[in-house]
Amino acid sequence: MSGMPLTERTLLGPGPSNPYPEATAGLAAPPLGHLDPEFINVLEGTCARLRTVWGTSNPVTLPLSGTGSIGMETAFANTVRPGDVAVIAVNGLFGTRMCEVASRYGAEVVRVDHTWGQPVDVERVLAAHPSPAIIAAVHAETSTGVASDMAALGQAVRERLPETLLVADCVTSLAGSQMAVDDWGVDIAYAGTQKCLGVTPGLAPFTFSERAWARRVEVPPVWYLDLGLLGAYVRGGPGGRTYHHTAPVSMIASLDAALERIEHEGLQEVTERHRAAGELLQNGLQEMGLELFAAEGYRLPQLTSVRVPEGVDSAKVREQLLVEYGIEIGAGAGEYASSVWRIGLMGHNARLDRAELLLGALGRILGR
Amino acid sequence: MSGMPLTERTLLGPGPSNPYPEATAGLAAPPLGHLDPEFINVLEGTCARLRTVWGTSNPVTLPLSGTGSIGMETAFANTVRPGDVAVIAVNGLFGTRMCEVASRYGAEVVRVDHTWGQPVDVERVLAAHPSPAIIAAVHAETSTGVASDMAALGQAVRERLPETLLVADCVTSLAGSQMAVDDWGVDIAYAGTQKCLGVTPGLAPFTFSERAWARRVEVPPVWYLDLGLLGAYVRGGPGGRTYHHTAPVSMIASLDAALERIEHEGLQEVTERHRAAGELLQNGLQEMGLELFAAEGYRLPQLTSVRVPEGVDSAKVREQLLVEYGIEIGAGAGEYASSVWRIGLMGHNARLDRAELLLGALGRILGR
Repeated sequence: MSGMPLTERTLLGPGPSNPYPEATAGLAAPPLGHLDPEFINVLEGTCARLRTVWGTSNPVTLPLSGTGSIGMETAFANTVRPGDVAVIAVNGLFGTRMCEVASRYGAEVVRVDHTWGQPVDVERVLAAHPSPAIIAAVHAETSTGVASDMAALGQAVRERLPETLLVADCVTSLAGSQMAVDDWGVDIAYAGTQKCLGVTPGLAPFTFSERAWARRVEVPPVWYLDLGLLGAYVRGGPGGRTYHHTAPVSMIASLDAALERIEHEGLQEVTERHRAAGELLQNGLQEMGLELFAAEGYRLPQLTSVRVPEGVDSAKVREQLLVEYGIEIGAGAGEYASSVWRIGLMGHNARLDRAELLLGALGRILGR
Repeated sequence: MSGMPLTERTLLGPGPSNPYPEATAGLAAPPLGHLDPEFINVLEGTCARLRTVWGTSNPVTLPLSGTGSIGMETAFANTVRPGDVAVIAVNGLFGTRMCEVASRYGAEVVRVDHTWGQPVDVERVLAAHPSPAIIAAVHAETSTGVASDMAALGQAVRERLPETLLVADCVTSLAGSQMAVDDWGVDIAYAGTQKCLGVTPGLAPFTFSERAWARRVEVPPVWYLDLGLLGAYVRGGPGGRTYHHTAPVSMIASLDAALERIEHEGLQEVTERHRAAGELLQNGLQEMGLELFAAEGYRLPQLTSVRVPEGVDSAKVREQLLVEYGIEIGAGAGEYASSVWRIGLMGHNARLDRAELLLGALGRILGR
């Protein structure tokens, strides 16, 4: 087979990351039909396990059949009515994208810009509009490596804007950071499989609260992302389980296997593993004389952003890592494309050995 | 791993079908990053191979990151402007769905209903409206097992309605039936990977003509399906290749491996293999005294619909096949749920041995 060259990469960019071996085994297992009773058991188990990693009891918790971005699209497609005010915190690329997507559904977007590399400022977001229909923010900004305090934002929204729905982008945080969407008061959250969940890209884990359900758009403009129809397949209904689209059965089996592996290791242990690997990496980079990009105190352990040293060709270093060591790291996003590197230690790669490997290879290339 | 039970099924329903071994190997291969030069090579190869199986030179030919239904959604999302007239031929479930999806984008749908089990009537479709923006029809109706003459429809549209865009649902025909979208005059076509392509579900091969491109909706309501943005990643542009969403790299590697396998066998040989397996099955079923559902002369070899004999419990037979033989076949769709079975011989399963297996098992259960 010359299709996918069997090159093996160590994927230490902003995602995809190398999958857990269990996830690969699940992916390659003989597929079942999407209406097979055994597959329905797998799907129900997957949804239950997703509730655990999200920290939610939301019945509408499921893997959407697309990559992480489809989670963002589904969030807005099912909640925005033309003219609705959406206050969106922007502290990186994915906040910017939320503005774009919400606008397509007719939202009147009130954009609260932050300096990239800084966390979301809860007070500025709350002050942006007296009664928005939606407030949205990114929990873990993949473009900058910054964690924002979703618990604080959720508490403020619940106390002061009880009618507002809160949307959280958790693409890079789910199963890597501590997560408690119910306790935090987050109504709608989405993630991707290719980051801390340790699965190849192709699904968007999604959760939608009962409050959001009661206020959802009954006939959203997008049929494929219509939660009413999706719910009839995933949860069943009075008329039984209704076919909507053919579920990506192998991807779901892969996600289920990864979630089972995470459950077996322990969710807290997995989070701690991400923390420890990130700490080793970030300390090592600083010892090497490099400067971290994200604000201190708000650095994601699973995704480290670091400034490219003066006089160093960013792209050339990435190429050397790729060609000589088989290691992928990411360029910066947006205007930081050539002045920042992004290094992910996510899922199966959230390990001390991966951190050491990267420090060794990067140090040798930079001569530090 | 208790995630996906390692039950092995022979998937002879309307899809998913068992993947080619090459497709499974591609799926389980170590993933590459979506911006890795080696992955970009794979993606470009996949798009080129898709052009061959579609029979097109359309530059915008790509695998969309979702299941087959996302192809239908993308077709309408990028072409329908509110108030546009869309004439839609309905001769089964997927024609019905096209009406639903086109309506969500504001199309004024002119629905041309046919008896289920019959092919699309070109003259009735052409007579439905003097100047529709769009005409849409299903090439291979998965719900009934009927093939329609897309060449004749395309020729009629080109000659008599040169301003109209023609959309074809080819979910069950691509790589199983002869396909020549350029020669036929089809502007937009989509498929799924889990049928005749012999890949697990998760991608929608898609092609979009230059005529359609010139008249596309510049800012479609759905960001994820915006062909302008997707094109900038898949094809590159003046500013190089722009990140849109993280491509499902393993699914694409799997599709590429299956396409390579099809290329190696020969596209015509693959189509002939589908024909021969379907003929054996359909003759065998009739010899057993069963009645085929689809109109004679319009029967898809890859998907056979057959009437459940009088007095036989349809669901019980399907369950016996599943439990005793590990064989999945499909129920009928819509009002034919319990009076029709659907039997697929698609992709890796388009083989004489699979046809014989099904005839043997079904014959034994029915006592015929």
